[in-house]
Amino acid sequence: MKTVDRRLLVEVEGGITAVPGFLASGVHAGIKKRKPDLALILAPRRAAAAATYTRNAVQAAPLQVTRRHLADGYARAVVVASGVANTCTGEAGLRDAEAMAVHTARVLGIDPADVIVASTGVIGPRLPMDRVEQGIYAAARQLTPDGGEAAARAIMTTDTRPKQAACRVALTGGDGDPAALVTVGGMAKGSGMIHPDMATMLAFLATDAAVEPRDLQAALRDAVDATFNLITVDGDTSPNDMVALLAAGTAGPAPLRPGTPAWSRFTDALTAVCASLARQIAADGEGARQTFGVRVIGAASVADARRAARAVASSNLVKTAVYGRDANWGRVVVAAGASGAAMVPEAASLRLCAGGRSLLLFDRGTPAVVDEGEASRLLAVDGVVFELDLGTGGPHEALAWGCDLTERYVEINAAYRT
Amino acid sequence: MKTVDRRLLVEVEGGITAVPGFLASGVHAGIKKRKPDLALILAPRRAAAAATYTRNAVQAAPLQVTRRHLADGYARAVVVASGVANTCTGEAGLRDAEAMAVHTARVLGIDPADVIVASTGVIGPRLPMDRVEQGIYAAARQLTPDGGEAAARAIMTTDTRPKQAACRVALTGGDGDPAALVTVGGMAKGSGMIHPDMATMLAFLATDAAVEPRDLQAALRDAVDATFNLITVDGDTSPNDMVALLAAGTAGPAPLRPGTPAWSRFTDALTAVCASLARQIAADGEGARQTFGVRVIGAASVADARRAARAVASSNLVKTAVYGRDANWGRVVVAAGASGAAMVPEAASLRLCAGGRSLLLFDRGTPAVVDEGEASRLLAVDGVVFELDLGTGGPHEALAWGCDLTERYVEINAAYRT
Repeated sequence: MKTVDRRLLVEVEGGITAVPGFLASGVHAGIKKRKPDLALILAPRRAAAAATYTRNAVQAAPLQVTRRHLADGYARAVVVASGVANTCTGEAGLRDAEAMAVHTARVLGIDPADVIVASTGVIGPRLPMDRVEQGIYAAARQLTPDGGEAAARAIMTTDTRPKQAACRVALTGGDGDPAALVTVGGMAKGSGMIHPDMATMLAFLATDAAVEPRDLQAALRDAVDATFNLITVDGDTSPNDMVALLAAGTAGPAPLRPGTPAWSRFTDALTAVCASLARQIAADGEGARQTFGVRVIGAASVADARRAARAVASSNLVKTAVYGRDANWGRVVVAAGASGAAMVPEAASLRLCAGGRSLLLFDRGTPAVVDEGEASRLLAVDGVVFELDLGTGGPHEALAWGCDLTERYVEINAAYRT
Repeated sequence: MKTVDRRLLVEVEGGITAVPGFLASGVHAGIKKRKPDLALILAPRRAAAAATYTRNAVQAAPLQVTRRHLADGYARAVVVASGVANTCTGEAGLRDAEAMAVHTARVLGIDPADVIVASTGVIGPRLPMDRVEQGIYAAARQLTPDGGEAAARAIMTTDTRPKQAACRVALTGGDGDPAALVTVGGMAKGSGMIHPDMATMLAFLATDAAVEPRDLQAALRDAVDATFNLITVDGDTSPNDMVALLAAGTAGPAPLRPGTPAWSRFTDALTAVCASLARQIAADGEGARQTFGVRVIGAASVADARRAARAVASSNLVKTAVYGRDANWGRVVVAAGASGAAMVPEAASLRLCAGGRSLLLFDRGTPAVVDEGEASRLLAVDGVVFELDLGTGGPHEALAWGCDLTERYVEINAAYRT
């Protein structure tokens, strides 16, 4: 979670259904052999909706359908199939994705154009639509105000645990004023093919705040750039990436306006939820034993800071060094050097930070004398952070999250379809 | 090797010393525990010299020294230390690299400014200069006309085998005209941190052709872009990358001129040697069991074709699928989609080609019916090629080479310094 004023913003239990009025469910439709594979989310009313999508030139069929459905800025429900990506499936795949919306709308008594459709899983195969249809009807019957975790479980693929986050924020600062409280909650999945580009693997967010669709889109874009777009597992950008946010407006009738203090509190809450979900995805990277952060400082621009941070977090050589608990800091410095970010190597420095301790590895262009035992101990701390000063003297910084690369990643992905 | 007219261009045995007049040697100086670690190359006279260097913002000390030495376009000798990269070593590292040139010049009786200096190995530590100096004197004593392989072995780090290539070309087409024969030979190393950007890991090339320095630089740049810059092992770009080419001019006094038929034959020979060395590097990728090619066709530009081809060859998911012999073609298509190259997914197609057989996997936007057993058999062929049509209708294409990602890569790099 981002550091925020704790008096105003508090983490709360649960995920998407931590937001008052939202219902969710997750069922086994039969797309996968045994595990839950179909999730449904229902907003308490037609909600302002925003989404960000993968920038991959290949776009999954459900993304194309969702983009059309969200053109008017509103949605009521989300339906997600996991196990099959419905990507590279041509016209037939588009018809399948549209049919998912139609079945969902029919059983819920809403407009198909108010349904967000998503899929995740193997690229290429068609969805088993008879099973998906029955799954949608079953999921609709099971919608409950505490179904968030079931929904979060039903969107998993190689994930080993569900990913949820929620927080509550006092918009107007007044304690005890119930109308001023707003909740943001969400769920996400993602474990492999994680290198989000302007979106991420699947994440679904909800809030009871009242926000105009256009403002909601801007808020989501900023939050995604600062969180999901700064994690990486393997450098591969999925064609199914999507983050969608529904704002039901049930917490207050007057829409929040950008530039007001209440708006900042709302976007802090949104960013905090996104940051938590993003880091949960990095932590559950395929085969990962631990996560590590890369904080880049002294960058000439925010874009440079983000580019360098993610390049380091993506480097196979850095990832294997973390796995081997080997403070091979040269790999960190040169991964940043190859990123395209402006860098002054003679003025660059690198520290390793964990558990309140900090160890200098590279000091303004020259190697520091390093206690390798201490370095190994710090590297063994989950969430250890490389702090790299690019040496440009610029004031910009960014924090990216990655995970180590283990033999298990290779095993998982060599045998993914078998 | 590139397909060329066999009557004009023939592969010959050996590497750098396949070029008449060039001497080379490789010795154990003591930078590494046991293996050869210092190589020397001597041209028969002061030679026109060209080089390409890494685009990493971090540049190894020897590259900075070599860049200065080649400013006048001429060089006579090459000295290479392996085991220590002499990178991120500050002013002291620059002095060490310059001292390598001074010792080499003294023992050979040449100008220090005519010495090309290179290093490869662990980033950070200083070179043990007393050992390096003795190694240079020992190597000078062992210079021989058949020392090419010893030199190629002495520049290895995690490489499992030396990499050499040479070919001979008849410049004027006349059989039996000895003055018209030109040889190009070279050696290279590289196994990890391989994702060359405008250069590669170390490669040293020689020819007896007469070429002006400026023309030689242009010829090398084109050959490198089409060969070394299209291989990848792990997506990490080394700060020590360097390709250097010496043209002694002993095969004929008149310099070759761009635009003439003889020039094309010379550049064909240069490209053929670079292509062979580049593919040898990909084949010796850390932990790799086999190589695979990615031929991108139907691209809107050469840059797009190269970008997409290398993105696919770099994808951890594609690399693990090859390792698992799983024709998970969706990973190939979406890796190209994420590359930034223009692509029309609805018109894109993918084939698997090996041993004269070809199997359609993805047919103008929709999955083909695939015999998975046949696909696995083709994937098991070393050098199997994914042929991806980006669907833009453009005439441009490129061929990149990569290697599979195995548990062994993780093991090698988790324990590299231990």
